[in-house]
Amino acid sequence: MLMLPGLAHHPRIQLVACADPRPEARIRFTADFDAPSYAEFGELCDDPNVEAIYLATPHQFHAAQVARAAEARKHILVEKPLAVTLAEAASMVERARAAGVHLMVGHSHAQDGPVLAARRLIASGEVGAPRLMTALNYTDFLYRPRRAEELDTSQGGGVVFSQGAHQVDVVRLLGGGLVRSVRAMTGAWDPARPTEGAYAAFLTFADGAAASLTYSGYGRFDSDVFLDWVGEMGQRKDPGRHGLARAALAGLPDAAAEAALKASRTYGAPGQPPGLPPLEPPEFHNQFGLVIASCEQADLRLTAQGVEVHGDAARRLRKAPLPAVPRGEVWDALCTAVLDGIPPLQDGAWGMATLEVCLAILQSAREGREIALHHQVAPKGP
Amino acid sequence: MLMLPGLAHHPRIQLVACADPRPEARIRFTADFDAPSYAEFGELCDDPNVEAIYLATPHQFHAAQVARAAEARKHILVEKPLAVTLAEAASMVERARAAGVHLMVGHSHAQDGPVLAARRLIASGEVGAPRLMTALNYTDFLYRPRRAEELDTSQGGGVVFSQGAHQVDVVRLLGGGLVRSVRAMTGAWDPARPTEGAYAAFLTFADGAAASLTYSGYGRFDSDVFLDWVGEMGQRKDPGRHGLARAALAGLPDAAAEAALKASRTYGAPGQPPGLPPLEPPEFHNQFGLVIASCEQADLRLTAQGVEVHGDAARRLRKAPLPAVPRGEVWDALCTAVLDGIPPLQDGAWGMATLEVCLAILQSAREGREIALHHQVAPKGP
Repeated sequence: MLMLPGLAHHPRIQLVACADPRPEARIRFTADFDAPSYAEFGELCDDPNVEAIYLATPHQFHAAQVARAAEARKHILVEKPLAVTLAEAASMVERARAAGVHLMVGHSHAQDGPVLAARRLIASGEVGAPRLMTALNYTDFLYRPRRAEELDTSQGGGVVFSQGAHQVDVVRLLGGGLVRSVRAMTGAWDPARPTEGAYAAFLTFADGAAASLTYSGYGRFDSDVFLDWVGEMGQRKDPGRHGLARAALAGLPDAAAEAALKASRTYGAPGQPPGLPPLEPPEFHNQFGLVIASCEQADLRLTAQGVEVHGDAARRLRKAPLPAVPRGEVWDALCTAVLDGIPPLQDGAWGMATLEVCLAILQSAREGREIALHHQVAPKGP
Repeated sequence: MLMLPGLAHHPRIQLVACADPRPEARIRFTADFDAPSYAEFGELCDDPNVEAIYLATPHQFHAAQVARAAEARKHILVEKPLAVTLAEAASMVERARAAGVHLMVGHSHAQDGPVLAARRLIASGEVGAPRLMTALNYTDFLYRPRRAEELDTSQGGGVVFSQGAHQVDVVRLLGGGLVRSVRAMTGAWDPARPTEGAYAAFLTFADGAAASLTYSGYGRFDSDVFLDWVGEMGQRKDPGRHGLARAALAGLPDAAAEAALKASRTYGAPGQPPGLPPLEPPEFHNQFGLVIASCEQADLRLTAQGVEVHGDAARRLRKAPLPAVPRGEVWDALCTAVLDGIPPLQDGAWGMATLEVCLAILQSAREGREIALHHQVAPKGP
């Protein structure tokens, strides 16, 4: 539901088929897009009209589905995290490589316009190399309606896999990608939701840079205050509202009711207005909390409009161009890969490296020591 | 000059003598306070009217001067950092203990009203134990006028000793004091000022909590934006001004001119208006950047007014009482120790533990590994 508006309205994309185990989703898709919808993922892969597949399934299905799609020689955009284990990730990368298809990971907030603008600015040499990055995000992630598996770390639940993947992606993209070590702690402070709801991590990079990441999904402090009350999706937020996610959950009797609430918000659920989602051009960029990158010659602060460049003598805002459709950057990158043959920045190897950092956050917290990394890659492209 | 207004106007303190090697300072002190001023520190120590000495000398003199003051059985408030080496710090603690005098470290921003209010809130059990703390501060520290030694790490120069001491003190006070390990990086990005101007540190605590510290003194991004443009001293700041510290330095020909500029701002320098500094009751609290402490049941954010408590259902501001005189909290604590016999929270052992963390930040950055700590203490008192 978050991705469909951009996908449906992107000028270079045509939705030609879908697969969903839920009949109500298939019925609605065919009605909305006048296109076939399949109950089996394999049928989608074998549809000759399909060039690329956007895989928005739960984490634990990614590996097998990517293998199946690659076998059918379809390009794949897979939701983050790429997978839950490095072995799965490595096999996905290998399958895509062997099949000669693009494997790309997203949406990641590292694909937000301001992050890409900061990366371009760094690549230009104008501000020197990043040396010290700070990223923090305080959200209500843990109290949004969840399926049971999303609260089970062994199945890829918790904030490290789902939210750490964004934050790690952002600092890896700005910092050149090559994380050398991770020291971290995680917090699981609510026995009713027994997975990681918070973490803090200290990353060192191969070139000597470092990044500090802080994340809490416990729905208390809200760091959108640092983004002038623009929310994660680039929407305006009411600063006076507090604790809504917790309050909404508190009224539910059990996990089944919570899963049902989540299901009621998915595509095709009863009661949703029919038809294509309307195109609402974004007013602000997506954002993922406070990000400050101190480079050799300037500090960069990401905002919902672009990059604030704090130099020695002055500060200025470099606006990042807004995408034509929501999260348009990720669809642009997919089209550039599939239609123009230009390898994506966030390919499978990139996603595997980000997953390695997330796994190292969990391991460092568990074992109380610094973890060395071995699968890091620099971002492709300019 | 920063401390004199509070000292001169505190209701329980009388300035009865001073020592200063500079004749102009001695002349002014005697004129301002109708009291003796000495050229030699030993003479001050031997003055029978003196009960306690506030030691605002450069770091490298602290150890010998504390030893001399303790020998004369004077209580001592010493500016942070307590010392530059752990051996010096241990000897100072031992000298004070043997002499039966209070040795206290300050001013530290851990003595600011909002920090103390947060500590009381935590001690009350109302919000649970702190689990994850984040502190960040972006200032122009490195570009304020300096003497040469302040730019030499081996003499206690750079931001880790001078500014890290504040930030470490704050998270130690909130987190219970017992830091277990430190992983850090430091940055020295300006060859013209070849000492640490920035650092990032990840601290773990004995009870499993963690803290992320970020500091940059490079005068680019200014984190006072997160404190509604109230500055470090609790003063209102003009958000439109940027880069003033760098610009002021840029006009100076050499290090001697810079030292002279710094000297022109010290007590007794020519051109300063005579007489006692006027009492200006503070409008806001002192602050040391953004501090967020995630506790088991609430997130606490420090502001220049007090503590924002972000709970599950609501957020509220707990105002901290403003001191009657600037930095009154530190003078209150000194008086409580000297006049009422109540040991100070920030005693010598506390200051030594904070110094140990600062030294570990430097060592971790130098050696690229996590450093275990051995001299940590819990804060005294309630």
